[in-house]
Amino acid sequence: MASPPSDSSLPITIHNINPKVLKCRCAIRGEIFSLAMKLQQELQANPGSHSFDEILYCHAGNPQSLGQQPITFFREVLALCDHPGILDRSETQDLYSSDAIERTRKILDQIPARATGAYSQSEGIKGLRDTIATGIEARDGFPAHPNDIFLINGASSAIDMMLQLLIRSESDGIMCAIPMFPLYTDFIALHGGYLVPYYLDEAAGWGLEISELQKQLGAARSKGINVRVLVVINPGNPTGQVLYEENQRDIVKFCKQEGLVLLADEVYQENVYVVEKKFQSFKKVSRSMGYGENDISIVSLHSISKGYYGECGKRGGYMEVTGFSADVREQIYKLACFNLCCNITGQILTSLIMSPPKVGDESYESFWAERDGILSSFARGAKTMEEAFNKLEGVTCNKGEGAMYLFPRVRLPLKAIKAAEAINAAPDDYYCRCLLNATGILVLPGSTTGQVPGTWHFRCTILPREDKIPAIVSRFTEFHKKFMDEFRD
Amino acid sequence: MASPPSDSSLPITIHNINPKVLKCRCAIRGEIFSLAMKLQQELQANPGSHSFDEILYCHAGNPQSLGQQPITFFREVLALCDHPGILDRSETQDLYSSDAIERTRKILDQIPARATGAYSQSEGIKGLRDTIATGIEARDGFPAHPNDIFLINGASSAIDMMLQLLIRSESDGIMCAIPMFPLYTDFIALHGGYLVPYYLDEAAGWGLEISELQKQLGAARSKGINVRVLVVINPGNPTGQVLYEENQRDIVKFCKQEGLVLLADEVYQENVYVVEKKFQSFKKVSRSMGYGENDISIVSLHSISKGYYGECGKRGGYMEVTGFSADVREQIYKLACFNLCCNITGQILTSLIMSPPKVGDESYESFWAERDGILSSFARGAKTMEEAFNKLEGVTCNKGEGAMYLFPRVRLPLKAIKAAEAINAAPDDYYCRCLLNATGILVLPGSTTGQVPGTWHFRCTILPREDKIPAIVSRFTEFHKKFMDEFRD
Repeated sequence: MASPPSDSSLPITIHNINPKVLKCRCAIRGEIFSLAMKLQQELQANPGSHSFDEILYCHAGNPQSLGQQPITFFREVLALCDHPGILDRSETQDLYSSDAIERTRKILDQIPARATGAYSQSEGIKGLRDTIATGIEARDGFPAHPNDIFLINGASSAIDMMLQLLIRSESDGIMCAIPMFPLYTDFIALHGGYLVPYYLDEAAGWGLEISELQKQLGAARSKGINVRVLVVINPGNPTGQVLYEENQRDIVKFCKQEGLVLLADEVYQENVYVVEKKFQSFKKVSRSMGYGENDISIVSLHSISKGYYGECGKRGGYMEVTGFSADVREQIYKLACFNLCCNITGQILTSLIMSPPKVGDESYESFWAERDGILSSFARGAKTMEEAFNKLEGVTCNKGEGAMYLFPRVRLPLKAIKAAEAINAAPDDYYCRCLLNATGILVLPGSTTGQVPGTWHFRCTILPREDKIPAIVSRFTEFHKKFMDEFRD
Repeated sequence: MASPPSDSSLPITIHNINPKVLKCRCAIRGEIFSLAMKLQQELQANPGSHSFDEILYCHAGNPQSLGQQPITFFREVLALCDHPGILDRSETQDLYSSDAIERTRKILDQIPARATGAYSQSEGIKGLRDTIATGIEARDGFPAHPNDIFLINGASSAIDMMLQLLIRSESDGIMCAIPMFPLYTDFIALHGGYLVPYYLDEAAGWGLEISELQKQLGAARSKGINVRVLVVINPGNPTGQVLYEENQRDIVKFCKQEGLVLLADEVYQENVYVVEKKFQSFKKVSRSMGYGENDISIVSLHSISKGYYGECGKRGGYMEVTGFSADVREQIYKLACFNLCCNITGQILTSLIMSPPKVGDESYESFWAERDGILSSFARGAKTMEEAFNKLEGVTCNKGEGAMYLFPRVRLPLKAIKAAEAINAAPDDYYCRCLLNATGILVLPGSTTGQVPGTWHFRCTILPREDKIPAIVSRFTEFHKKFMDEFRD
């Protein structure tokens, strides 16, 4: 702005806006993120002004910002869909793989008027939803139906939409794990609902205990809270664990018995790094238990932002909505209409991640090489970083089984806690700020995700390019030593 | 879905969801839209099952669904940004224009890590906001600042965001023109605010009278409504008028005097078809009156969906926010963060519409030929259709000065009104359903946009391909004659 206006004569002030907006913390892009942006600007304006030469954004699951390259086949198809006028040119055969050209033609045939620049149906292009349903069936071995699929601008928009639908007042409760992905807290606050936390068991590898769910549900109900939804993120964010199927069956039973909607955030379904565990969708688990459409309400979220593709900036994904009556589904459709439709690029990309190249396609081998290269690099990164964190004084870190994060616990000395209190900061926030200022490494403080009171953590992504990990580990280790030397009791 | 679930055992029913969602009508994609979709499916499944062979979606401003081709330069840049790996290949020089290649390189340089698949800053990529600010300055002749720009997923998302920020309760009033673009009504209902209508004067070419604003403001205030925002869509939707600058100055003065935020929906700024009128942004008008940052709060909306580009499906645009204090702007930023960011394709396209090819660029001539071809075709279409509507018995239609619509008035015979009442439909809705069933032409009934009680209208887009307009006109004319013959009093 030209000159920041003094608000004296302006109608809108911080005191007369929607108080629900004020209540949201927007932790994922909060103060420490702003500090990182400020440091980055200083580095740009004045290289050498800090002891590091770049900010390493390890706070978020944003792979391409850390150098990951997009999957070639997916981008070829997107480029051709954007500019289909060149499909018949001979140069196009040289520049693009034959299956990308073929897939583009197929997708264009699925789009009314072949118009990639027209509003689509609000729930998404029918032909793409057909492809996605087929992909879900192949994954789960149970039927999936295009009419259950709503395409979305990333999982965040689906969370927003479903909580807006289900929250009527602050007596409506939404159960979320602690530690949690902080956007859930924000959307609950924005829509004026009540957060019912349940704690994951760090000592049991961030285990999700049914007894804990029952305890917290009972406590909320005794306060008059009408608990409506259980949110489960699997693989876990920020905690990186992968649920056992047995555990998932118990969760499904719990939702069925207690009449809760199961909001299954399954955006990390391609991100599992340990051989002893495997992703199973909650819908698959519930169908294999014999629960059908009439028995349980499940909303399954998937996104193009995660997995091996990491296309965060394209904003796409789907929600599969099962076990809702026709008139409720119409209200979900209505909420989808407010966007008019989701961006078509994201819609196309969502269909691609659910139907990647197959044996015999020209791109098949290079696609799988790219995919496996990325996923095995993530697996190695998770292991290297977990081991490095476990070597730090007072730090313990559970295994990174899946998703894109580690969530180490730091036992902070009393002196550090006092130093944080002196500047009115949470102790882990203070630790993370010191880390950022000393090394340029940005991680997310546990106080933004919630944690057992009196414990301190941070979320760190496993996504940095492998060639950069040794330097990150050594900078982190050096920082931690100095920090402990300064504050050790 | 497999089998529509009976809701007996499911937790969520139509009776226990957010009542604000229930209240929304989602008129833009309401029942008549569903009827059109149903007819289209019937035509696909059983060609020849109706007396027409396609549905003509004339209810909405969705140019590419009606056959408009995207602007080549814009799509070349998008395609290259999606797949920059081919930028250095010699075949690329043959397939893409040199300025598209050059522009792509410039845009990639503006994106951190050159990553078109990474989350960006929540307000949008800084370099693209710089470009947009420069474009606004060139348009207005007054300074524009990148920090005032928030990139959005289409204007609908900005309307949602600003009304969510400003509405605290049903005592907060939002002034909207009647007839209005129905998404405003829906968002006011969704966020629990109060709609303060003001009527446009059909006899004065859909004129916006300050006396009417004052009257309605006074009436609302006397009911205890805290009126906060005046929404003005210019060029008008659904009414297609373009405001005179003198009128705009009076509107600015009114907002200043009454302490209202001016929400200027300026998405049709490129769509003006009469030589005697010219688009002027409200920010330009207010600056030219000497009102600065400290005097008036203006939110200006622009979109990639309209203009000559019509890229509805890409979901992009910007809002320029001026006259808000720093702490209020931080709350707007917070709301932007809930999306994480807008889709990068839409962000790039927004920068392109604000900085199209210039004299000397390879694409310059073909770009301007495409642009002028589209806009002059719109102008001719508006004139042809306006004249045709004015020839129909009992129909009058104001001039289509701008935007993408005509909003003719139909004087319906009493017998038709009774027939509508018999099936519990609004008379204009009944007329539009009869039209759709007889001709495949979908228009939007005036009862969804609001109108002076006892008058009946419909919104019809001027966008059909020019070679199709004669057939549309003749089908419409034939239908109208038959309708009048059936129902004439």
